[in-house]
Amino acid sequence: MTLISPTPAPVPALDLPRFKAAVEEVLSGFLLDRTHHATHEPDLSSLALALQQFLAAGGKRIRPTLTLVGWHIGGAHGSHRAALHLAASLELFHAFALIHDDVMDSSDTRRGQPTVHRAFAQQHGGTPQAADQYGEGAAILTGDLALIWSDQLLHQGNPTPQQLAAVLPLIDDMRTEVTLGQYLDLTLTGNPTRADVASALRVIRYKTAKYTIERPLHLGAALAGAGQHLLQALSAYALPLGEAFQLRDDLLGVFGTPATTGKPALDDLREGKATVLIALTLNRASPRQRDQLHRLLGCPTLTEDQARTARHLITSTGARDLVEDMINERYHQALTSLEEAPGLSTAGADALRLLADQAVKRSA
Amino acid sequence: MTLISPTPAPVPALDLPRFKAAVEEVLSGFLLDRTHHATHEPDLSSLALALQQFLAAGGKRIRPTLTLVGWHIGGAHGSHRAALHLAASLELFHAFALIHDDVMDSSDTRRGQPTVHRAFAQQHGGTPQAADQYGEGAAILTGDLALIWSDQLLHQGNPTPQQLAAVLPLIDDMRTEVTLGQYLDLTLTGNPTRADVASALRVIRYKTAKYTIERPLHLGAALAGAGQHLLQALSAYALPLGEAFQLRDDLLGVFGTPATTGKPALDDLREGKATVLIALTLNRASPRQRDQLHRLLGCPTLTEDQARTARHLITSTGARDLVEDMINERYHQALTSLEEAPGLSTAGADALRLLADQAVKRSA
Repeated sequence: MTLISPTPAPVPALDLPRFKAAVEEVLSGFLLDRTHHATHEPDLSSLALALQQFLAAGGKRIRPTLTLVGWHIGGAHGSHRAALHLAASLELFHAFALIHDDVMDSSDTRRGQPTVHRAFAQQHGGTPQAADQYGEGAAILTGDLALIWSDQLLHQGNPTPQQLAAVLPLIDDMRTEVTLGQYLDLTLTGNPTRADVASALRVIRYKTAKYTIERPLHLGAALAGAGQHLLQALSAYALPLGEAFQLRDDLLGVFGTPATTGKPALDDLREGKATVLIALTLNRASPRQRDQLHRLLGCPTLTEDQARTARHLITSTGARDLVEDMINERYHQALTSLEEAPGLSTAGADALRLLADQAVKRSA
Repeated sequence: MTLISPTPAPVPALDLPRFKAAVEEVLSGFLLDRTHHATHEPDLSSLALALQQFLAAGGKRIRPTLTLVGWHIGGAHGSHRAALHLAASLELFHAFALIHDDVMDSSDTRRGQPTVHRAFAQQHGGTPQAADQYGEGAAILTGDLALIWSDQLLHQGNPTPQQLAAVLPLIDDMRTEVTLGQYLDLTLTGNPTRADVASALRVIRYKTAKYTIERPLHLGAALAGAGQHLLQALSAYALPLGEAFQLRDDLLGVFGTPATTGKPALDDLREGKATVLIALTLNRASPRQRDQLHRLLGCPTLTEDQARTARHLITSTGARDLVEDMINERYHQALTSLEEAPGLSTAGADALRLLADQAVKRSA
């Protein structure tokens, strides 16, 4: 008699668009419930509604998607509900970070819509100064609420005590890291003279590589019970990819098409954002070019003509091509890491490869 | 032979100053550890240090004290460490709320020190506008960090899964309530014409009665495993007392001595804070007095002479005495509730009576 050993069920390909749709459903269900809950408190409804509109205006949901990918890679142990709630809670946390970021940068638009503080200011009807103060205050509170509700959303997924013990310390670390990244960014922005490549890369590491790629993967995998080896393998993929992702973002912030990116074409230049691209440009520019750039960068009234001059300068120093090279190098480093990753399923590696393409080869 | 039944150990009187000292120790230990942890990230140290200085500048630690009182009243079950960490985490949460509040109100001082955004702005060295923007951004991030670390501090107390399940939903609700209270306050402040007594009392309920008194007691009791009956008895005490506490604060904000309160004597009037005191004054004023008050309240350049006029108006309408009556009524309501509270120990009732005195009969 031949014994047929039971073969394991084939691992299905990880369906990224389905992940995104499932996250949307949890997010909108939670916000609908919170808004409904708030109808006896009309003022709370205003904040809940602002948050709902902010989330509905778009976003790639890259962090929740990565969390679900991490969970599948970790073996998808435990309830699907807990994984979805953890994933969706990262999007609420991200809404918090962006809403406060827009206040700090005094940005006018985000995702093609007025920023939260601008929208509240427009509703005020008082003097411009009073309206601005009200708008800022209401946006700070909307952001606070997003952070507070991201905790609540996670708790409502009913994670087991073991799961909570695995993910809470990672969440605590992730939040501290992104706050540090924001602060580093704040100390550099508007000071392009202070920008050197190393500082700009440090901002990228905290603001993007760890926060956007590494921690979401870690969180999903840890929820599924993954150990240190898998988390380290995920870091080896995530950190170079995260840098490549942000370097692409910086290029799009200067050379992208506003209709595609949803961001005004001049904001990064007007803000004097201290990116790697700008640091490289300043390093390679002649003294005359450097003076010219210093006059243009961080000028809040920069015109489209002046922006064209800045773009030409950036390109002519070779900085633009250099950043493309850096992206390429990091992209390949991320892909290579997958070949050496212990115990990574084919489906998991395929999903990570697809995500790497999406992160790096994009126009929005 | 006579059987002597073992008598229960006498419940010790609740030592409130000892509670405060124990909380200070946990708080400063945590912040020292976080700052030490951050020494390889000098920029994170700046935020950690700002938070440390903010907490060192004072504060009554009323919420942590109430949490520990609630824990003892609930039977003090579970580890002392978890209770202390929960209590201390509320103080970090409160730091978050105050730091953001000061940004929203553009306040210059708090506890006799420059507010966090002013202190950061002073360090900047750029143009006044750039310094203000940097100061605000850094303060928003310091506040965010305080909220993020309040979670971490709670987690580091190693509460059991049962304890976490009991307190996390209460924490989520408390945080939403205080955000709502802040928003209500924001929509009223600067609009004293919109201030009516009912709206002002609603702000008090969310901003103070629930957040400062009820929820801290609930959290401590729930951590000890208390059921709904005890939580309801604590609410019957906490809500009137919380209103009395805030009404006292409002009187001190207008009539207090800055050297004792640590707050500038003119801030509440200059800000046009829509308190119950002001709403009652406007209700009872003659049309001429009302016009006069509207010119004075919310005027950012209000002089000490003008403030004296406003104080005289408030007193002459009888509003000041009325608020004293409201405080008295609520104080007695809180004390009476203790007589009917089921299963409240003598030591517990004594501590709550002492706290009621401290909340209402004070000059700072």
